[in-house]
Amino acid sequence: MPELTYIGRIRTPWTRAEDCPRNAMETDVVCRVEVDAPYRAGLASLKTCTHAILLYWLDRAPRDVVTLTPPSDTVTHGVFALRAPGRPNPIGLAVVDIVAVEEDGLTVRHVDCFDGTPLLDIKPYFASVDSKPDARVGWHETRAKPLPPQGGRSKES
Amino acid sequence: MPELTYIGRIRTPWTRAEDCPRNAMETDVVCRVEVDAPYRAGLASLKTCTHAILLYWLDRAPRDVVTLTPPSDTVTHGVFALRAPGRPNPIGLAVVDIVAVEEDGLTVRHVDCFDGTPLLDIKPYFASVDSKPDARVGWHETRAKPLPPQGGRSKES
Repeated sequence: MPELTYIGRIRTPWTRAEDCPRNAMETDVVCRVEVDAPYRAGLASLKTCTHAILLYWLDRAPRDVVTLTPPSDTVTHGVFALRAPGRPNPIGLAVVDIVAVEEDGLTVRHVDCFDGTPLLDIKPYFASVDSKPDARVGWHETRAKPLPPQGGRSKES
Repeated sequence: MPELTYIGRIRTPWTRAEDCPRNAMETDVVCRVEVDAPYRAGLASLKTCTHAILLYWLDRAPRDVVTLTPPSDTVTHGVFALRAPGRPNPIGLAVVDIVAVEEDGLTVRHVDCFDGTPLLDIKPYFASVDSKPDARVGWHETRAKPLPPQGGRSKES
């Protein structure tokens, strides 16, 4: 099986699960994506983009999760219907606003991972293929339990 | 460095680069995502979702690409401003329409990878965090060369 390569780290204010935002739009804290020296030339032209997709390795997440009852629900769902970190390949995904692109990384909004999370990839966000404003997640809309309070929500703190 | 786990395969009509669609919206061919037995319980609740994000391993792609001149341009760009398959971690990403969810996988539209591509993850698409209809990719809008003709475009064939 192929091995991943860490190409950098994501710097956020969050080190404990209870402080992390529940999802990336719950926070507008500015975070830094550090790109290691061998990969920095790959940032060329990214400053012409407004949004990027970050892929990162959720290195604290379990890999033996197939079904799960999320904290926001009373029903058990399949892991492929959830954005929970624990999954067979714990690859995190965040669609971020690009605030600035520097020589050694980028500054972004709307990341919800732990400080120091290993970076795997950065992709430009193309609205033509990536934006589906009418997409629905049925189980999430009809779940019984309201979302519990959690940290990281800068707008409320 | 962590090792990936293949959780299934993506079945498409394309076996050669020249037949693949240039991007996922260029094709509306119905494709099958096969999920291996140990992970099938993870599909529960996915049938309530309209769209999913597939992550897959581009096992034919080079990993030593940092800059590239895409076929659609005359200018060299950083790999992180491109959706080209070759990159340090060649993880492919497609936002797909879910046509049906079966016991052993799902049927989707808008995949552009080779037949047999190893599957890494399936995530539900949440419009609230994933949809950015106003996102722009500046270099792509202003590039000099028009896109070359290519295969896989069912609407034209």
